[in-house]
Amino acid sequence: MTKSEIFENICRKKSFLCIGLDTDVRKIPSFLCNDIFAFNKAIIDATADLCVAYKPNLAFYESEGLRGWEALEQTVNYIRTNYPEQFIIADAKRGDIGNTADMYAHVFFEKMPFDALTVAPYMGEDSVVPFLEFQNKWVILLALTSNSGAEDFQFFENKNGNFLFEEVIIKSLKWGNTDNMMYVVGATNAEMLSRIRKIVPHHFLLVPGVGAQGGSLQEVAKYGINSQCGLLVNSSRQILYADNGKNFAAAARANAVEIQKEMEDLLKDKNLI
Amino acid sequence: MTKSEIFENICRKKSFLCIGLDTDVRKIPSFLCNDIFAFNKAIIDATADLCVAYKPNLAFYESEGLRGWEALEQTVNYIRTNYPEQFIIADAKRGDIGNTADMYAHVFFEKMPFDALTVAPYMGEDSVVPFLEFQNKWVILLALTSNSGAEDFQFFENKNGNFLFEEVIIKSLKWGNTDNMMYVVGATNAEMLSRIRKIVPHHFLLVPGVGAQGGSLQEVAKYGINSQCGLLVNSSRQILYADNGKNFAAAARANAVEIQKEMEDLLKDKNLI
Repeated sequence: MTKSEIFENICRKKSFLCIGLDTDVRKIPSFLCNDIFAFNKAIIDATADLCVAYKPNLAFYESEGLRGWEALEQTVNYIRTNYPEQFIIADAKRGDIGNTADMYAHVFFEKMPFDALTVAPYMGEDSVVPFLEFQNKWVILLALTSNSGAEDFQFFENKNGNFLFEEVIIKSLKWGNTDNMMYVVGATNAEMLSRIRKIVPHHFLLVPGVGAQGGSLQEVAKYGINSQCGLLVNSSRQILYADNGKNFAAAARANAVEIQKEMEDLLKDKNLI
Repeated sequence: MTKSEIFENICRKKSFLCIGLDTDVRKIPSFLCNDIFAFNKAIIDATADLCVAYKPNLAFYESEGLRGWEALEQTVNYIRTNYPEQFIIADAKRGDIGNTADMYAHVFFEKMPFDALTVAPYMGEDSVVPFLEFQNKWVILLALTSNSGAEDFQFFENKNGNFLFEEVIIKSLKWGNTDNMMYVVGATNAEMLSRIRKIVPHHFLLVPGVGAQGGSLQEVAKYGINSQCGLLVNSSRQILYADNGKNFAAAARANAVEIQKEMEDLLKDKNLI
C-alpha cells in the first residue's frame, strides 16, 4: 500500500485509528470457546468502517502455538479478502541478522499478506534493510516506545544531547524513505513527539499508548499531525475488551466510534477533511 | 539448569561449544525431502557428545509456518528427552512490553522445555524481567552482536565514553544476576570482549561469530574465559552445512570434533580441566 492510499483512506473514513488485535484467549468471551479467529472476525466486522489499519501483536498468537499461528493466518487473510483497503501491520518487533531478516520478510510479506512489520533497531542496518526491498511494503521501526522501560536505553544520550531514539531515526533515514518506513512513537511522551516531528516532518508515525497506557489523543494530534495526517494511532484493549459477554462486538464498535469521532474532529480542526 | 551444572558439563565434555540449529530447508541435503526435524535429529545425534548447548534460531522455523513450529517443538523435545544435559537456547531475540513478555516466557519456558531465551534490550526493564521470574531459566541479553549493523547503535556513546552495549550490561545487572542472565557478545570484536569482561567478570557470555563470520576462537578465549569458563561459543553453518550429501552428519561431526579439540586445549591452557 502506498502513502497516498493510506491518506486517502484516512480522509474517506475520517479516522486514523489502528486497532491492535492483541487477542488474549484468557480475555475473550467464554462462549467463544477460545476461538481466536471467531473473536477477531467479529471485532473486525464490527469496526472495519471505523479504522484504517489492524495490527495483530504476534506474541499473542505465538503463545498459543500452532493454533495461534493458524488463527493469525486466518485473520490476516480474512482482512485482506474482505477489507482490502486496510493496512495490516505485523507487530513482530523482529530484529536479527541479514539472512534471518530475509526469512522474516518472506514470511510476513510473501507467505502472509501483511503491509508492514514492526522492527527493533538494536542490531542496526543489516537487520532492517532486507525488509525494505519489497515493493509497497513498510518497515515500522521502534523509536520511542510507550512502556516504562523506554526510559532505560531509548533516552541514552550522546555528548551532543541526542537521545538514542533520535539517533535511530536519523540513521535510518539513509536506509528508507517516507514511502517505506514509519516509526513507532509512544503517545505517553507528547513533548518528545514534537522533537521527533522536527526530524521526520513527512513520515507516518505509529502511535501506541493512547487509552489504557495513559496517552492523550489530543496531545498526540497537537504535536504529531502533518499535512497528510502522518499518524496511525493504535488502540487495543479499550476496543477488544470493551465487554466480556455476548455483546462484545457491539461494545467494541461503540468504543471505536467514540475514538473515530474524536479523530474526525481533529482532522477537521487541521483542515485535512 | 544452574550455572554450576553448565560448568560441570563443560569440564566433562571438554567443550564449551554451542551448536546453532539454524536449519535452512534450502540448504539441507535433498534426500531428506525438506524434513527439518530429520536433519536436526541426525545433526544432534552426531554431535551431542561434543557440545554443551544447542541454539535453534527461531526465524528459520517461523519462516516455514506451521510445519516449522512443529519441527521446532519436535527438536527441543528430542534434545530434552535424549540429551537432558544439553542447555537449550531459543534464539528468539524477543523484546516487547510486559504482558507480551509474560506470554513469550510461558511459551518458551513452560510449553517448550527451553533453558534460555535471547532477548533484545531496546524496550528496557519491563521487556526483560518477566523472563527472569522462572527458576533455573535464563535470559541471554543482546549486548554486542557480531553483525555489521552492530556498529550503528550499539556503539552510540554517552558523554562519559560509555557505549550503549556497556550501558545495557550495566543497567541489566540490577535486574538479574550471574545465575539467570548471560550476554550475547560477538566474537568479531575481541577488544570489546575484554572491556565487557571488566564489567561482568563472572557472567556467562554467549559468543556468536566464530567461523563463518570471521571471529577467532583463540582471541575469544584469551579475552573472555573466566574461572568457570564463562563462555558458550556458537557455531552454526560451519557444522550444519559441512557436507550436502548422504554424509552430512558425519561431516558435521568432523567439524565439531575439530572445534571441540581446540576448546579442550584452551581449557587445559587455563587449567580448568
